[in-house]
Amino acid sequence: MPIEQPFTFILFGGTGDLAIRKLIPALYNLYVEQSMEVPFSVIGISRKPMTHEQYGAFFIEGIKKYSRNEYEQALYQKMAKSFYYISGDLQKDSTYHHLINILNQTESGQKNRLFYLATAPEFFPIVVENLTRHGILQKGAVSPWHRVVIEKPFGSDLASARILNHRLERLVDDFQMYRIDHYLGKEAVQNFMVLRFANGIFEPLWNNHHIDHIQITVAETVGVGNRGRYYEQAGATKDMLQNHILQLLSLIAMEPSVDFDAQSISTEKVKVLRALRLFEENAVVRGQYEGYRNEKDVSGDSKVETFIAAKLEIHNWRWAGVPVYVRTGKHLKEKKTEVVIQFKKTPYNLYRHTNTDANRLVIAIDPKTGFDLQFNIKEPSRGNVKIKSVKMNFCHECEFGENTPEAYERLLLDAVTGCWVRRQPGKGFIGAGRSSITLQWNKIF
Amino acid sequence: MPIEQPFTFILFGGTGDLAIRKLIPALYNLYVEQSMEVPFSVIGISRKPMTHEQYGAFFIEGIKKYSRNEYEQALYQKMAKSFYYISGDLQKDSTYHHLINILNQTESGQKNRLFYLATAPEFFPIVVENLTRHGILQKGAVSPWHRVVIEKPFGSDLASARILNHRLERLVDDFQMYRIDHYLGKEAVQNFMVLRFANGIFEPLWNNHHIDHIQITVAETVGVGNRGRYYEQAGATKDMLQNHILQLLSLIAMEPSVDFDAQSISTEKVKVLRALRLFEENAVVRGQYEGYRNEKDVSGDSKVETFIAAKLEIHNWRWAGVPVYVRTGKHLKEKKTEVVIQFKKTPYNLYRHTNTDANRLVIAIDPKTGFDLQFNIKEPSRGNVKIKSVKMNFCHECEFGENTPEAYERLLLDAVTGCWVRRQPGKGFIGAGRSSITLQWNKIF
Repeated sequence: MPIEQPFTFILFGGTGDLAIRKLIPALYNLYVEQSMEVPFSVIGISRKPMTHEQYGAFFIEGIKKYSRNEYEQALYQKMAKSFYYISGDLQKDSTYHHLINILNQTESGQKNRLFYLATAPEFFPIVVENLTRHGILQKGAVSPWHRVVIEKPFGSDLASARILNHRLERLVDDFQMYRIDHYLGKEAVQNFMVLRFANGIFEPLWNNHHIDHIQITVAETVGVGNRGRYYEQAGATKDMLQNHILQLLSLIAMEPSVDFDAQSISTEKVKVLRALRLFEENAVVRGQYEGYRNEKDVSGDSKVETFIAAKLEIHNWRWAGVPVYVRTGKHLKEKKTEVVIQFKKTPYNLYRHTNTDANRLVIAIDPKTGFDLQFNIKEPSRGNVKIKSVKMNFCHECEFGENTPEAYERLLLDAVTGCWVRRQPGKGFIGAGRSSITLQWNKIF
Repeated sequence: MPIEQPFTFILFGGTGDLAIRKLIPALYNLYVEQSMEVPFSVIGISRKPMTHEQYGAFFIEGIKKYSRNEYEQALYQKMAKSFYYISGDLQKDSTYHHLINILNQTESGQKNRLFYLATAPEFFPIVVENLTRHGILQKGAVSPWHRVVIEKPFGSDLASARILNHRLERLVDDFQMYRIDHYLGKEAVQNFMVLRFANGIFEPLWNNHHIDHIQITVAETVGVGNRGRYYEQAGATKDMLQNHILQLLSLIAMEPSVDFDAQSISTEKVKVLRALRLFEENAVVRGQYEGYRNEKDVSGDSKVETFIAAKLEIHNWRWAGVPVYVRTGKHLKEKKTEVVIQFKKTPYNLYRHTNTDANRLVIAIDPKTGFDLQFNIKEPSRGNVKIKSVKMNFCHECEFGENTPEAYERLLLDAVTGCWVRRQPGKGFIGAGRSSITLQWNKIF
């Protein structure tokens, strides 16, 4: 659905890594591939001193370095109506006065505004408060629309998430707010619901009658690198488990939703998270890789976990009794994100003289994407039946190529088209209402 | 299971096509690959005049031309204790006196005998009657064992099958009789039971709740060739449908058997066949390819069908209401034997704006062997969810190579080892008792 109305893209943290690596290339790709057809203005805001022209050059650099599509000057010029840059402190009124001046110059017709907060989390409420106080962002604005995109983390624990929600809710309506977890914009993650609900053969098996256990693994080979400061606050639990893994878990375990808009999906996901408990007491393992304490910005006696594994259970009719093993960590042997659905053995082994493995569906997410269905067939032989476990395979890259839209393209497009208001499929957003994930996670640990 | 006891292989129709192309190479392969470890004697019987030496040469020719394994003289000499040939009329006593003389010369120790009837069907009872009358074949002989292998067709209709059964049953016990349909010895056909009963994920879907319909196709590109005389008697119905297709159907539709010996399997297959009806009146199409009446040995106004298709139903709890489409024919566009399990659509299409195909499991038998599981995933895109039907695949040849044991090797080995008596898996035999298939088929057409 191409966008028909012009808009202004106001990018807080406009010179950061996320901007140049992800957001700028995503905007360009959306335009080149005609998902966005109207030109737009960009206003970058950051501390760094920079001219408007320099910011335009920064934008082009982002496209050239990180876009899937070749940079083409003619296209670029058609797309980017104008570039502005504001060097300022996000806590000072002058920054917002400056922003108002630029908006007055650039906007004509519908004054649609997308505020993208690619800043440190502590600035989220400060920026939104300032925007509303200066009348730049209006609560409930639908036509013209005003929308706010907030990158995770959304608070650092239950209390802070509640406070943040509370502060933001007074300033903007929920449908204006897009809490982004880009992980959910990944093709492979988006595929989960389609796999489950656009196929008739999986759902009848998708319960505690037929599934023995579930494994969710997000394993990295890298260490914390330069992100020691952040990681000391987060650890594996907040970095991976409470967001990515719990999102995967809720997509795997949710009931079919009434519809596939953000609210319907969120409703079902929240039900899973509310039913989530440790399988038994102390079913958690935390670990730290050797050398972590010598990493940059890491405390010499840090107790932060770089690995966490837990055995969980979803307390509802569908899943009671089925262990869900989750694990994630850094500096592990292999880079791999996958979900394993381990089915139960056959109720009776007709081929008593031979061992048969139970069936298993492996959903590979990263680095490879695809499905493996492990099943048993007869090994060619004479005499006694021999059974061999083999795999049916579907390789996503083989079918669709590697060059598929990136997560941020989807998320930006959804924000710009207002998927929430239009009741389009909500993709990659944690969802409406309270930050239910943080809430629930606290019950577990 | 290697055979420990010597035996004599008495081959009626010993110079025919089946002997040279299939049986002789199969015996050699079994020996070379050490499934049979004892040497054996061969006595060929046919009308054609031939010396013992010539028959030995005929045997070697079969190995050289048609065996999977290279002919090696040393091995061959170790395997083949002795070769004899009898040129004679199967209706005359002299032939059987001759056979007794040779047996007296060649047999020592355990006098195990495998009588293989690779003759025209009308000779089956004649040969067995003569063998018993002359005391060469004894009813109930277990040690030493006497066994009779009969190639299909087993009668040409209900009445003749009953008569044949009746005549044979008075002469030999059922456990001595191996009614061979080599089609059932095919690896891909043998795989059906393993697929269904060594995997937990298929059986819960394998019923009228989840399956929309079943298709069984045996399509050939060739015409009748030189087999016009036979085909005029048989037609597509007797040539393919009542044997191969009904066997496939019963393997697909049967309940899990108590055990996997011949009797247990036969019991379940017969239940399927007894429950088989036309789905509705006149749900049969017969056809004849253009030019059939000009084929060799075919009547100029032949009404014999070279194509038949039918819509069937299995009247039991598992399958009621599920159409089973069967079809077979000659001179068709493509050579293909396959079974399609077409699952039902999802009970509700969450993705209302898009069409989703129902899931489908394709079991390929010939010329390729393997499985395709057709399912839906999300097509990489932004904006609205697009759904694409893709395939998980398992290719049998890719996993195991092309050089797997042939049907006749399995069948011969089972006959020689006495799978029936030992309660080993019965492979490729129509089963014990009445020729239930013929019985049932008559109810349908």
